[in-house]
Amino acid sequence: MDKASITEGKPIRCKAAILRKAGEPLVIEEIQVDPPQAYEVRIKILCTSLCHTDVTFWKLDSGPLARFPRILGHEAVGVVESIGEKVDGFKQGDVVLPVFHPQCEECKECISPKSNWCTKYTNDYLSNTRRYGMTSRFKDSRGEDIHHFIFVSSFTEYTVVDIAHLVKISPEIPVDIAALLSCSVATGLGAAWKVADVEEGSTVVIFGLGAVGLAVAEGVRLRGAAKIIGVDLNPAKFEIGKRFGITDFVNPALCGEKTISEVIREMTDVGADYSFECIGLASLMEEAFKSTRPGSGKTIVLGMEQKALPISLGSYDLLRGRTVCGTLFGGLKPKLDIPILVDRYLKKELNLEDLITHELSFEEINKAFHLLAEGNSIRCIIWMDK
Amino acid sequence: MDKASITEGKPIRCKAAILRKAGEPLVIEEIQVDPPQAYEVRIKILCTSLCHTDVTFWKLDSGPLARFPRILGHEAVGVVESIGEKVDGFKQGDVVLPVFHPQCEECKECISPKSNWCTKYTNDYLSNTRRYGMTSRFKDSRGEDIHHFIFVSSFTEYTVVDIAHLVKISPEIPVDIAALLSCSVATGLGAAWKVADVEEGSTVVIFGLGAVGLAVAEGVRLRGAAKIIGVDLNPAKFEIGKRFGITDFVNPALCGEKTISEVIREMTDVGADYSFECIGLASLMEEAFKSTRPGSGKTIVLGMEQKALPISLGSYDLLRGRTVCGTLFGGLKPKLDIPILVDRYLKKELNLEDLITHELSFEEINKAFHLLAEGNSIRCIIWMDK
Repeated sequence: MDKASITEGKPIRCKAAILRKAGEPLVIEEIQVDPPQAYEVRIKILCTSLCHTDVTFWKLDSGPLARFPRILGHEAVGVVESIGEKVDGFKQGDVVLPVFHPQCEECKECISPKSNWCTKYTNDYLSNTRRYGMTSRFKDSRGEDIHHFIFVSSFTEYTVVDIAHLVKISPEIPVDIAALLSCSVATGLGAAWKVADVEEGSTVVIFGLGAVGLAVAEGVRLRGAAKIIGVDLNPAKFEIGKRFGITDFVNPALCGEKTISEVIREMTDVGADYSFECIGLASLMEEAFKSTRPGSGKTIVLGMEQKALPISLGSYDLLRGRTVCGTLFGGLKPKLDIPILVDRYLKKELNLEDLITHELSFEEINKAFHLLAEGNSIRCIIWMDK
Repeated sequence: MDKASITEGKPIRCKAAILRKAGEPLVIEEIQVDPPQAYEVRIKILCTSLCHTDVTFWKLDSGPLARFPRILGHEAVGVVESIGEKVDGFKQGDVVLPVFHPQCEECKECISPKSNWCTKYTNDYLSNTRRYGMTSRFKDSRGEDIHHFIFVSSFTEYTVVDIAHLVKISPEIPVDIAALLSCSVATGLGAAWKVADVEEGSTVVIFGLGAVGLAVAEGVRLRGAAKIIGVDLNPAKFEIGKRFGITDFVNPALCGEKTISEVIREMTDVGADYSFECIGLASLMEEAFKSTRPGSGKTIVLGMEQKALPISLGSYDLLRGRTVCGTLFGGLKPKLDIPILVDRYLKKELNLEDLITHELSFEEINKAFHLLAEGNSIRCIIWMDK
């Protein structure tokens, strides 16, 4: 009998990396993970990675979004350990991706091909569990609740995820690559293909060459973009970017008296066909907008503004036929679109290996924060069993 | 021999309504209209109408856009009196629409189906004549130049227009209806059909029920929109709007402590599928944006911001899958798309008659300004020969 059979229906004791206080190192502790309830699945995390959103919440020390103790992590892959009642489509042993972006499969938007904005669930990013509000499935050694994080919480050996946040995938894909498809790569490829729908021969500018920005580059490269300009303060990103199709590089620190958008417009006749903001700064969203060509230029905002600042757009610049759109999860419906991405990877169409620059054991998880902060890590895979 | 044959190649003396000073009544004077040069056509205006953009420039008293004396007017229909050299596709007697929005038919954007933003010409709205800079074809009785207005100048019996601003149409269409197709109706229908591409069953909100807003309503009505909410401070617009498919009405003055967008969101579950701003106020563009549903809501800005103010958009509101786009001339390519609109009118698909609420003789042109200011005139047709 395997472990799953033994643990089904019972709490599991395992290790988790707990955020006890904003900005402090995570603490590996033994926790208790309760069995999944109706519509929930308990999964064993195989590996996870660290995304800038984790870092944002790691630093956040006040407001309703700052909660402690908490288990961060939302880009991961796992195996189903057990399922709760009323769970269809998942069984023990399935390889699954937990995803922060919900898909209830029932609401108007989930049914519509136009949108990935599940109206049933997307208004709530504060609860611990999707259908049970502040109820947590995690307890620390003193029996106190530990908060979940955007319905995933992957910095733990076991987690409980609602089926609206779970995607079954082919077990053929390497698990580290699979983890990336649960957030950054899906976001970038989706933005390039579904939201922007970039055509062959387009000129593209990408602000921020992290995992999301590089996934955008990979997406537009595969669409045959003629010029793909990367914008990043880190010059090392150009060499990395070339592997994903980046043809030109702009370092904002070297623009002199010109704005970034002035430089981009000079490089693209009158402006790029598409610009993608993958950082989360209103000032750069505005530069991205100004970088696009009149008549048909399209700006896609993927970054979550780090201080929730508004974006200011010149009304005449807009009137000149420009478009701005925002997107979460690249406009993809997780359950529908992630398996398609997995399939394309298995057909060797996608370069995703080069996104993985570092690997660590779970015990070393705090090093991943330093690597990301230093700017030389694209994605660091954290292996739970190594 | 008809008049055209006699006048061809010679200056024409005729009547024009001259703006001598910002905000003052136009003065009907005798002017001289020079013969058309290469790529130009001289046309006899049959009728014209007054648009809010004319009023904006009528009031404008400083800056590079304020120029005197000037002949305003840009929504009109005429007949070709004579053509200059290198003019193909137009001949004496053709019924034509002069249009402020250029189409060179040669630049990248003119060739692309994605855009109506002629990059060869749209950067210049300051010149008098498209290919001859500040050269004017109008002289007053003292021999002084009179400025053109956005390459049309229709408040005159004769005007000279570049072929990039001229569309030949079927002579079967009533000329007053044709005039509307040269600006407001094309803008509204184009925004509904080409820019927004509204689907059957959509919920739509339209800010401003002037000719452009009502043309948007007509466009989305024909697309089968389920709910069409008109927003206007003038309650009389609801009755007029019903003829164009407006199903619901919001008077901002009666919203109490709620914002317009709060009222719209209540009326549309979580927001409208499409919102159109047809006034030109940044504050209303922002309300229009907030009125749209997350996930797929699309805001189309048609109004030219009256003080060139920027628009401020909540970055998280944007990230929730919303889109904002601006458009001039409804995204239409004049030479390609206006004949299609004429054809649809001739097939009795479009209700445009109800847009014409008043008619005046050319001598009475100043009354049209009062009618528009009072808010009860949608379009006032000014007949040159009556």
